Amino acid sequence: MQQQVSVLTLGVADLARSRRFYVDGFGWQPIFQNEDIVFYQMNGFVLGTWLETSLSADMGRKLVKPGAFAMGHNVPARNDVQPTMDILVKAGGRLLKAPTEPPHGGFTGYVTDPDDHAWEIAWNPAWVISPSGLVTFGL
Amino acid sequence: MQQQVSVLTLGVADLARSRRFYVDGFGWQPIFQNEDIVFYQMNGFVLGTWLETSLSADMGRKLVKPGAFAMGHNVPARNDVQPTMDILVKAGGRLLKAPTEPPHGGFTGYVTDPDDHAWEIAWNPAWVISPSGLVTFGL
Repeated sequence: MQQQVSVLTLGVADLARSRRFYVDGFGWQPIFQNEDIVFYQMNGFVLGTWLETSLSADMGRKLVKPGAFAMGHNVPARNDVQPTMDILVKAGGRLLKAPTEPPHGGFTGYVTDPDDHAWEIAWNPAWVISPSGLVTFGL
Repeated sequence: MQQQVSVLTLGVADLARSRRFYVDGFGWQPIFQNEDIVFYQMNGFVLGTWLETSLSADMGRKLVKPGAFAMGHNVPARNDVQPTMDILVKAGGRLLKAPTEPPHGGFTGYVTDPDDHAWEIAWNPAWVISPSGLVTFGL
């Protein structure tokens, strides 16, 4: 099968609150939105923020937080990490972990979105990011 | 900021068990692995499966399951949905929801990976997938 994730869907309690974080914080533009879901066209896949009650009903199971996952957004320079985290906190995020230098290099911290989903904001010079946002693993 | 997710990291309890699902089930190839983490180069971003204890320690908080999120893998044809789900279940996944036709069209079901992370296996003819696996939203 194609080595491909088509969509990542996050359960959210309040669409407007979530939208503020992603649109005003990250500065991303939705490609579709209604009263139930907001979609963002990302780098090769689609990010959806869907009312948690709808996501839970669709799966047919109860969901709990914080889930055992994290998303990461890499920034171009070490000096971009803290300001990016500050902007996200101002847009309704929460500081989870101030940036540190991990053993493998770089500079990275965590904020949560308004639904307690974790975002790692990282400077990782080993990973290449194309001008259109395609990210390639590196060591 | 770039409309970009660099990495999606899943917490896993047993790396070999998780690897079996992704490598033998999805047929994906790791780009890096050690005793703590396996990375897969995906369509424009990186998927990581990291020992949940390490992910939890890195974030500095306890994590619970099943989290309020889902990943989706779109397949080329309606007739690919059920066989793909069968292969994933055989590789250590669990059937969560047999495929149905959602109101917006297509054909879609859910399996979980061995760590109870949800994968929606979908045929969605409105979304375009390039030969290299880049997925574009459509209605």
